[in-house]
Amino acid sequence: MLINDAKTVAELQELYPQYERALVDNDVDTLTKMFWAAPQVMRFGVSENLYGLEELEAFRRGRSAVGLAREVKRLDIVAFGEDVGSVTLEFERNGADGRIIRGRQSQMWVRMPEGWRIVAAHVSLLP
Amino acid sequence: MLINDAKTVAELQELYPQYERALVDNDVDTLTKMFWAAPQVMRFGVSENLYGLEELEAFRRGRSAVGLAREVKRLDIVAFGEDVGSVTLEFERNGADGRIIRGRQSQMWVRMPEGWRIVAAHVSLLP
Repeated sequence: MLINDAKTVAELQELYPQYERALVDNDVDTLTKMFWAAPQVMRFGVSENLYGLEELEAFRRGRSAVGLAREVKRLDIVAFGEDVGSVTLEFERNGADGRIIRGRQSQMWVRMPEGWRIVAAHVSLLP
Repeated sequence: MLINDAKTVAELQELYPQYERALVDNDVDTLTKMFWAAPQVMRFGVSENLYGLEELEAFRRGRSAVGLAREVKRLDIVAFGEDVGSVTLEFERNGADGRIIRGRQSQMWVRMPEGWRIVAAHVSLLP
């Protein structure tokens, strides 16, 4: 198994910031497009479990665009072969009460015929 | 990209219950062995962020073996090619106060020369 092939890592390094920007901007079209358009795609969000692209997109469209800004404190990208990558990060966000909220996000990326797509994602907050 | 190759899915279906059993039994040796022995391995636990096999193993060895039992309510396995798989699940556990705790777990599995290993994992509770 080829680990951290430079070209593959570079592709994911270029791609990931597009996701982060779309998230903070609540750019639902871009976010939806970055996920795999398949019934097997899934996303565990902070307080919801979503299966299939329709559920993912409906959640995004129904979500308030307020309070999505966050600061990435650590980002790790690991490539497996030339078509699969793990993108994990720790983030901080300012809560409504002024407290700092700390969270984590993990994504599994796969190169599909249509391009790199997120096939599984998980976001959660630390207690 | 080959999705859900039957042989690959069958391998992961046979393997995953070994992880679940080791977790509930707090069989640290088996749990540690199922993770990739590399500095890039990572695991976001319910309240900890772990990087590298040493941190993962130290956490397991320091954890109380009490209250690890859980019931898997939904399990999804998706294989990408013949060497990569996503294993995600929802679980329930009885809390100390009698309340039901609901959580989610996602794992990325990769076939290494030494066998299938978890390269990234994320566990969290629903609020």
